[in-house]
Amino acid sequence: MIIQNEAAQAVPRVSLVGAGPGDPDLITLKALKAIAHADVLLYDALVDKELLKYARPDAQVVYVGKRSGEHSIPQGKLNRLILDYALNYGHVVRLKGGDPFVFGRGFEEMNFLTRHGLQVDVIPGISSSTSLPGLQQIPLTHRGTSDSFWVVTGTTASGDVSPDLYRAAASGATVVVLMGLKQINKIAGVFRDAGKAALPIAIIENGSLPNERVLFSQVENVSRELQSESFSGPVLLIFGEVVALHPEYQRREAEGIMVHN
Amino acid sequence: MIIQNEAAQAVPRVSLVGAGPGDPDLITLKALKAIAHADVLLYDALVDKELLKYARPDAQVVYVGKRSGEHSIPQGKLNRLILDYALNYGHVVRLKGGDPFVFGRGFEEMNFLTRHGLQVDVIPGISSSTSLPGLQQIPLTHRGTSDSFWVVTGTTASGDVSPDLYRAAASGATVVVLMGLKQINKIAGVFRDAGKAALPIAIIENGSLPNERVLFSQVENVSRELQSESFSGPVLLIFGEVVALHPEYQRREAEGIMVHN
Repeated sequence: MIIQNEAAQAVPRVSLVGAGPGDPDLITLKALKAIAHADVLLYDALVDKELLKYARPDAQVVYVGKRSGEHSIPQGKLNRLILDYALNYGHVVRLKGGDPFVFGRGFEEMNFLTRHGLQVDVIPGISSSTSLPGLQQIPLTHRGTSDSFWVVTGTTASGDVSPDLYRAAASGATVVVLMGLKQINKIAGVFRDAGKAALPIAIIENGSLPNERVLFSQVENVSRELQSESFSGPVLLIFGEVVALHPEYQRREAEGIMVHN
Repeated sequence: MIIQNEAAQAVPRVSLVGAGPGDPDLITLKALKAIAHADVLLYDALVDKELLKYARPDAQVVYVGKRSGEHSIPQGKLNRLILDYALNYGHVVRLKGGDPFVFGRGFEEMNFLTRHGLQVDVIPGISSSTSLPGLQQIPLTHRGTSDSFWVVTGTTASGDVSPDLYRAAASGATVVVLMGLKQINKIAGVFRDAGKAALPIAIIENGSLPNERVLFSQVENVSRELQSESFSGPVLLIFGEVVALHPEYQRREAEGIMVHN
């Protein structure tokens, strides 16, 4: 006699879902509906545990982020894990911090899964790159100050600063750097070499969460100021004149906390 | 005898809230909670009517977008309107398409309202700039193809193409242009002059809505191809090699629909 479990008969499919920048209330209604219907919920390190409670009581809920002291799961292994769960249980929701297609490697996962015959859909999330500045009441664009913004990763596959950063630094765009804290000295150097030593910077740690922290500085001062700060959470860097619109930046400047060389 | 209505005693405050790119399910839980508590809901043209049903039955629900045949309400008039509603009724939710701080003029509204003593908070929305490409399964960034993206408005205050676009076109960044359809010939010209005649383009109309439409093309062909198309809804332009990762783009290229000069 063959015993077949009911879930195994569900059509295998995968939803790549963005959880937003951190605050669990910044997830979309569409994402919540997908979580509530999923047979399997795979979540990564940047996803708030609060969101797991929307899963069905009988759903498989599995952590696929970094383990303490470990590197993250290699992408190839993760792809096969998602595929196996879908083939065995049906509908997998792959819940990722931010947006799965904005520096999220969602495209690589989608490619692998569709090559294996699975149906894949994408539910966008709020990217930290566009939302955390606004939550701090810093506009990415503002008439007369900046009419574009550029989002770049500080950590490229090669370990070098992205070549695009040189053009971004020379432009009038607001520049947002994700995963750039370790490279901050190199990145600030690119802006300094572009004649932007006095350009305002905001550094946002744990954006949208209760332990959110912001440091305001300028290109020429940021490396020195960071020596007395320790950031352990995810960090977003914002370079641009729009940062100077923030009342706290203006207060610090008025009080002479920011030293112009 | 002075009759004071109860709502008038509520503390005047304003939430600037993003409704997301179009699909009403792409609004955040936090935005829905704000709408459900608001004394006044002011919504603009890009907001789906479906979202209005989350308002309290006794809330003032007021359209503040363009009227047919009219220009939009001038920003100064709109600012005073928001202020008046808050002073008279209490908590105003100003619901805008996309994200209020990404080309949304939310900062101007916030500035005006805080100068008048109001408490203002921001609830980010999913920006069409980061979400619509992913919904079409086009990644903004992809290892080995593009490690940054640049978002620029096609319609500047002066009517000219943004000077930043020239740097963006010369870079390796994926370039996303909002409100750029009317300027498409000028914009494509900037890319052609930067040696990018064969660069893939995707044009997304009514992104995330049931009547969404996508046109794939290349810099050198887009003006000609657009002559036989008519777009009436909001349009997002994506310039970049990442567009060529889309199966439909590859199919068109294989079938010779895209003519290389």
